[in-house]
Amino acid sequence: MYIAALDTPALVADMDVLERNINGMATLCDQLGIPLRVHTKTHKVPEIAKLQIAAGSQGITCQKLGEAEVMVDAGIDNILIPYNIVGTPKLKRLTALIQRAKIIAALDSEETAKGISQQAHADKCTVPVVVELDTGSGRCGVQSPQKAQNLARQIVKMPGIDFQGVMTYPSNIGAKSFIEETLDLLSSDGIPVNIISGGGTGAEAASKELGCTETRSGSYVYEGMTRIGNSEMLAPERCVLRVIVTVVSTPTPERIIIDGGMKTFTSYPPSPYGHIIEHPDAKIYGMSVEHGHVDVSKCSHRFKVGEQLSVIPLHQGMTSNLHNELIGIRGNTVETIWQIAGRGRVK
Amino acid sequence: MYIAALDTPALVADMDVLERNINGMATLCDQLGIPLRVHTKTHKVPEIAKLQIAAGSQGITCQKLGEAEVMVDAGIDNILIPYNIVGTPKLKRLTALIQRAKIIAALDSEETAKGISQQAHADKCTVPVVVELDTGSGRCGVQSPQKAQNLARQIVKMPGIDFQGVMTYPSNIGAKSFIEETLDLLSSDGIPVNIISGGGTGAEAASKELGCTETRSGSYVYEGMTRIGNSEMLAPERCVLRVIVTVVSTPTPERIIIDGGMKTFTSYPPSPYGHIIEHPDAKIYGMSVEHGHVDVSKCSHRFKVGEQLSVIPLHQGMTSNLHNELIGIRGNTVETIWQIAGRGRVK
Repeated sequence: MYIAALDTPALVADMDVLERNINGMATLCDQLGIPLRVHTKTHKVPEIAKLQIAAGSQGITCQKLGEAEVMVDAGIDNILIPYNIVGTPKLKRLTALIQRAKIIAALDSEETAKGISQQAHADKCTVPVVVELDTGSGRCGVQSPQKAQNLARQIVKMPGIDFQGVMTYPSNIGAKSFIEETLDLLSSDGIPVNIISGGGTGAEAASKELGCTETRSGSYVYEGMTRIGNSEMLAPERCVLRVIVTVVSTPTPERIIIDGGMKTFTSYPPSPYGHIIEHPDAKIYGMSVEHGHVDVSKCSHRFKVGEQLSVIPLHQGMTSNLHNELIGIRGNTVETIWQIAGRGRVK
Repeated sequence: MYIAALDTPALVADMDVLERNINGMATLCDQLGIPLRVHTKTHKVPEIAKLQIAAGSQGITCQKLGEAEVMVDAGIDNILIPYNIVGTPKLKRLTALIQRAKIIAALDSEETAKGISQQAHADKCTVPVVVELDTGSGRCGVQSPQKAQNLARQIVKMPGIDFQGVMTYPSNIGAKSFIEETLDLLSSDGIPVNIISGGGTGAEAASKELGCTETRSGSYVYEGMTRIGNSEMLAPERCVLRVIVTVVSTPTPERIIIDGGMKTFTSYPPSPYGHIIEHPDAKIYGMSVEHGHVDVSKCSHRFKVGEQLSVIPLHQGMTSNLHNELIGIRGNTVETIWQIAGRGRVK
């Protein structure tokens, strides 16, 4: 099938660019000598995770337990969940999942550790965990090396839970003293550290320098404004995703309306929302829920109702999360259709 | 099941408030003497649409063809689609759907009309249509009464398509001259007008005054900041939706982290993202994809990992669109679980 025959709005991935991005990161981590554990939050597609593993990733990272379940269902067997798993329903799901795959969970409190310990002990299994360090994210994570040490000391006394090391986000050189001091304290306690997990696309060299045992990179797989930083630099040769849309109205000479709005692109980030490949001078200046409002006053092209356009969305992960399927294209042809199986798995 | 036993984040609807909002709008339209055609974009749940019809709505409005298909599948048989239906895949779906239910489509161009006409003629059916007037939305819609007349003149000459009238968005008193002039021009041509569709929650009285034959109200069903306009006014007795979240981290005395972020709430609108019913002084000040960052520095309550909170989301329709199911609650008990069947149907 040709792209031109697609019903729209359709989320498509350029397979050539996807393969180039996956191989490029694999080569970079290989050259740096830092093992890669890809983060699948951006795509949520098991088939893409498998391409990344085939290219050398030693496992994957899933932000939520529900995404990890989808990946295990698809046959992936080595997953880090860098998220506090809290509450009986999730703890039961965690101990069920751990029978089927190697799962490592991150945590930052004694309450989370106790919950995991008690459920795992009851279910006769052991959950490997890493302690999250807040090295600048201002989100989760223990706030000091001493607190990391205190938490590790608690964990090693608990049944059903196995202290494996630490994780940090973000990985930058400012994290060096926090990590080193934590390792020294753990070493002085005789608590072994097997994992030092660093993270974030672009932090691969820093992860190596910090002494990490792995680096978690995610958004590199698609590339977009969240990585490239400037919508002017978005280009089809480096960005994988496009939303194919149709012009549904040409109400004035300056304005056209496309059939994708906030429910197709997300409302984040703001204008220009996306980059129209065929007509870079056409600017998406606003979106309502199901309409995209495009200023074409700077275009010499005369747009017609029914015309298809290819838009590189600005936020790759948020846009992917709105769609049920991803259509893999090569050139002008549809090559494959993948379910975005991890979409909406917020639990 | 009690709410406290729910896995989180969970999207729930307070059934008492839902019924009150549905009945309140039905009573208002009854008193005004304006027929109601509810817009289902906010909830996308067939069971809620049926409650609205049972309360007196003469049919429903679906913003996209895919949402209309879901509603017809559920047995709803009278739907306005206020959207230009363009392109062969959608036109074939439209003519298939029209065999199963009364569907009215809106359009604003000769190209859209021709597409519908040709497909309907080929498929031996007739599609009733209304012409969209741009009475201030700055989105789709013909730009003048003369253009509405010209388009109606074209439509009445085409096979397979039946001109039924006009629709306007928004409905306010500024639209009066546009509508009246259009009706005069159509009358002078002898083109009958059966439908004058007005729209928008809060525009019910204006629709009546404009002479509309129906008014489309949608967001009233849940209520939220997009309607109430000020997050300080959000209150559990008028707002239907809550997201039940769990505190997963308490990294500092000033900050707690909840297990819902942009993929649970949407990124629109910005801070405070939602209203925490139990602790109004706790302010959601930021969101990453799967985390909500809450400032609790003004709270005397000491939050604990594992504690559940109930958050009224600010944008009801966008939040609903991220979830697969809606849990209907009454008091502290789960009463029903509905699939959000129209979610993600952007085509």
